[in-house]
Amino acid sequence: MENFSIGVDLGGTNLRIAAIDQQGQLLEKVTLGTQVSLGPDFVIGEMCTAIQHLSAKYRGSAHLQGIGIGVPGIIDMKTGEVRESPNLAGWANYPVHSKIEQRLGTRVFLENDANSAALGEKWLGAARELNDMAMLTLGTGVGGGLVLGGRIWHGMTGMAGEFGHITIEPNGALCGCGNYGCLEQYASATAVVRMAKESIASGKASGLSTAASSDSEFSAKVVYNLAIQGDEEARKIFAQVGRALGIALSDLVNALNLPMYVIGGGVSSAWDAFSPFIFDELRQRSMVYAATAPPSSVAGSRGASANVEPGGSTKTLVTRALLGSDAGLYGAARVAQVLAA
Amino acid sequence: MENFSIGVDLGGTNLRIAAIDQQGQLLEKVTLGTQVSLGPDFVIGEMCTAIQHLSAKYRGSAHLQGIGIGVPGIIDMKTGEVRESPNLAGWANYPVHSKIEQRLGTRVFLENDANSAALGEKWLGAARELNDMAMLTLGTGVGGGLVLGGRIWHGMTGMAGEFGHITIEPNGALCGCGNYGCLEQYASATAVVRMAKESIASGKASGLSTAASSDSEFSAKVVYNLAIQGDEEARKIFAQVGRALGIALSDLVNALNLPMYVIGGGVSSAWDAFSPFIFDELRQRSMVYAATAPPSSVAGSRGASANVEPGGSTKTLVTRALLGSDAGLYGAARVAQVLAA
Repeated sequence: MENFSIGVDLGGTNLRIAAIDQQGQLLEKVTLGTQVSLGPDFVIGEMCTAIQHLSAKYRGSAHLQGIGIGVPGIIDMKTGEVRESPNLAGWANYPVHSKIEQRLGTRVFLENDANSAALGEKWLGAARELNDMAMLTLGTGVGGGLVLGGRIWHGMTGMAGEFGHITIEPNGALCGCGNYGCLEQYASATAVVRMAKESIASGKASGLSTAASSDSEFSAKVVYNLAIQGDEEARKIFAQVGRALGIALSDLVNALNLPMYVIGGGVSSAWDAFSPFIFDELRQRSMVYAATAPPSSVAGSRGASANVEPGGSTKTLVTRALLGSDAGLYGAARVAQVLAA
Repeated sequence: MENFSIGVDLGGTNLRIAAIDQQGQLLEKVTLGTQVSLGPDFVIGEMCTAIQHLSAKYRGSAHLQGIGIGVPGIIDMKTGEVRESPNLAGWANYPVHSKIEQRLGTRVFLENDANSAALGEKWLGAARELNDMAMLTLGTGVGGGLVLGGRIWHGMTGMAGEFGHITIEPNGALCGCGNYGCLEQYASATAVVRMAKESIASGKASGLSTAASSDSEFSAKVVYNLAIQGDEEARKIFAQVGRALGIALSDLVNALNLPMYVIGGGVSSAWDAFSPFIFDELRQRSMVYAATAPPSSVAGSRGASANVEPGGSTKTLVTRALLGSDAGLYGAARVAQVLAA
């Protein structure tokens, strides 16, 4: 009998639940809106109903190993509960884990969403041939996940992988974490919009200004569309995204010397606009990258893991995520398979 | 019969060789000058003579497991040879490893000197109760070593742990590695002297100016002596050392969430002058540190490892090295014991 697990990606906007077998085959996926304003009890109720539906459907032909839930926040590794979650108001210190386990009578594992995404890309995505990798997810904020020896590196208290809070500019923009000049302030969707508004305020960005006044939901996507149409100010913003990522990646490459760094999350759709600046910074700033960079035609190409030599990689690859917005969902399912095994 | 190994610390100035048993007991230590100008063959000859002397002396009563050599440079993990060594002119791509092994007929392991120091502090020093730790060595440059799961983390090609090249100021001082604003440009002995000279050139630093003109070997130590005598400009320089370390450590704490970060190397003697600024930056810049900081009386105290609770640490300790300049020597001996076992 085949084993399967259920992965949940609990986002601030979408709640996605999938049954995934041990080979990584998607059996079924359900997408719901996350009605954060109705409180954790309501959302947990909806989540559990969907999980029960899926598990009942596949339990006849396969064994349910457990349920993994990717949460945008810090998970306390001792209690298994959510410790902090800026994007899920009211969820911090709420007994999410025990409530769900009680209701379902199945083993449940909470994991940080960026860690889940990293494990997803390691299992089935860009880093599937590798045991060591780091991932950056560029979304509302910038998340990070580190996989060492095939497993998520949690650190001492489960707080490792906060790459979004690497300092890029010691006197830069104030971050929600209390630091100044964090990567998150230059490479998140929120940062793209902030930098666009700063550019508009400076009076130089007529294209951005027109777009902002005609579009009530002025977003990073709008800025990207202007950039690919050649708008100079919009392009400068993505250059700054790429440079900030390049500085943070140089730090990580010098510190960890991993074979692969994967860039995912919504903002990674703008890869073509920002990635050239990543590689410029890496070549200049990281002697470890300079010594291990692949030929430039390979750097950054999708599916770069095909370039991993048998017998171990000796090249540093920086590449786009392959699983798109499903990385966290697959990773959450994998968390349950690994931990339940 | 007891096992022992021989550790070598091959510095640009001193060549130190010690026989150390499996319990970490020093049997005997020999210190020679490193006559770099006479070339690698000469230095290797002197080193081998001393090693043979020590091994002959203790081989009667104990079993020699191997020889570990800490080298200030990058070791190629595939060949075991020195790949780059800015402080040992003529040693890069010279077959150091095979020459020594040939001459001695014993297993020889080369390791980066900062990695050796990290392993030394993990084995017998500040981090002896822990399996995961990072070390920064503040000397002519700034070296780094990372120990995960009790072993040196080499990364893909042996180049991990280059913490001295974390970017502190993206438009800061040009570093020998090609980057701008590396930690090494603010926290090494070389940087202390450079910053002092900049301060003198600005005309504001009369104390430093007097010291520099009366002392032909104007060094970081001279600047430190002025700082502890209360010279304002000298104190500012160590404030900058501490702030730069605090920024780099914030990055590492956020990325890795380790229980301990050890600061060693010659400049760490100025701990009292720079460490308060490390903790200021950490508290402000790292949310992971803020969530895991020990009570302030413990932070930074020597022998902080005594504060590690049984059953796992949950506090982030930043502390001075305990083994002083012997960390690399003990670590090199340990490399041979671990790899030969």
